[in-house]
Amino acid sequence: MRPAAQTGTVYGVGLGPGDPELMSVRADRLVRGAAHLAYFRKAGRAGRARSTVNGLLRADVREIPMDYPVTTEIPLEDPAYAARLADFYAETSTHLIELAKSGSDVVVLCEGDPFFYGSFMHLYMRLRERVPVSIVPAITGMSAAWTATGMPVTWGDDVLTVLTGTMTEDALARHMGAADALVVMKIGRNLPKVRAALQAAGKLDRAWLVECASMTDERVSPLAQAADRAVPYFSIVIVHGQGRRP
Amino acid sequence: MRPAAQTGTVYGVGLGPGDPELMSVRADRLVRGAAHLAYFRKAGRAGRARSTVNGLLRADVREIPMDYPVTTEIPLEDPAYAARLADFYAETSTHLIELAKSGSDVVVLCEGDPFFYGSFMHLYMRLRERVPVSIVPAITGMSAAWTATGMPVTWGDDVLTVLTGTMTEDALARHMGAADALVVMKIGRNLPKVRAALQAAGKLDRAWLVECASMTDERVSPLAQAADRAVPYFSIVIVHGQGRRP
Repeated sequence: MRPAAQTGTVYGVGLGPGDPELMSVRADRLVRGAAHLAYFRKAGRAGRARSTVNGLLRADVREIPMDYPVTTEIPLEDPAYAARLADFYAETSTHLIELAKSGSDVVVLCEGDPFFYGSFMHLYMRLRERVPVSIVPAITGMSAAWTATGMPVTWGDDVLTVLTGTMTEDALARHMGAADALVVMKIGRNLPKVRAALQAAGKLDRAWLVECASMTDERVSPLAQAADRAVPYFSIVIVHGQGRRP
Repeated sequence: MRPAAQTGTVYGVGLGPGDPELMSVRADRLVRGAAHLAYFRKAGRAGRARSTVNGLLRADVREIPMDYPVTTEIPLEDPAYAARLADFYAETSTHLIELAKSGSDVVVLCEGDPFFYGSFMHLYMRLRERVPVSIVPAITGMSAAWTATGMPVTWGDDVLTVLTGTMTEDALARHMGAADALVVMKIGRNLPKVRAALQAAGKLDRAWLVECASMTDERVSPLAQAADRAVPYFSIVIVHGQGRRP
């Protein structure tokens, strides 16, 4: 009889904003040593997480692509959207649990920081009471975005509020009005709405649009001057705080 | 005649939350290669930033400790506090500018992320039009804190608000009431006030106190059960969002 294998660990490894040099030393070590490597991607695409670690992997790595069943084909509000994703996360977590129970460690690549608006969180909730899970935090996309603007984001007692472009224009404007410093995530097709809310909150003239922060095609523009062009979903809007500074 | 030296660069290098393995690959490379290394510290102390890089430095590194002239001896509101700090930042930045103009690169260690409530920001504003400055973003203390709680912080459209314990209780409670997920930085002696504000906002029962996130003495406690004991200034309070999750 074979001895029972020791249960492996699932590592939720944050990759940071996209520049491979901005991965943590621990993430870099785990990725380079991974025998099993899982990552989300849109079906038919290479996947941004997987592209970030190009050139770092073991020659004998076993890859486990996890293809989203839907991204923008069904509206977020449609119950069918949640149902399709719930099935996907259930199947995927079952596969990772089987791998861990058979004794294998699995590294799951996470864009940004795993516990900050991340897809891995949905697997995590299904894994955490079944197998050991270890989370490696990472540099957020918003840190890379405010760094790209060349100006600090929060001073002294500044209140920082992080919003998502998926909110309604009224809710966006209300929260924008109450904050000193602002980050708006998930821009993409929500850009005109985010601009209108910033205008209503009197903050459009201080807002910056950051596309592809930390990547080779990084682009920083004053939002008021950016035409209503198509921008990536992962673009980020930044308004800097004006707090105390000696 | 000696040829004019090429101006050096001042690197504002984020070290992250404290665990040296959570430094970025770029930060690790810059710290290991540094010939001139500057860092803030309280006079008479080793300094947390300097301690983080113990064992990583070149044998011939030239260290430039920057001792704060005041920390808690004068109240924040006292004009003398701002005046003393302004003089300190002016003198320190002059020294770094001289070093860079003489051709040396200087690595300045920054706890956390340099542009997020960081001391380096005050040097940066005095350096940026005089010499080349390069900023390396980092994992924030708050990312390490929410990772330590074992629960994701923001889901779906959750609004995240970041506050400082130095604010008034009324302002804290008002912002806490409007947010889904919360981070409160700069706790220390402000802990009783932060607890009272969370109670007023109806969020005390969901709040966690995280001390020394990512460090060997990391400690996570439900805030309602934490006695009003002395906690480090860099402790962080976390309230998790409850947003959409398939």
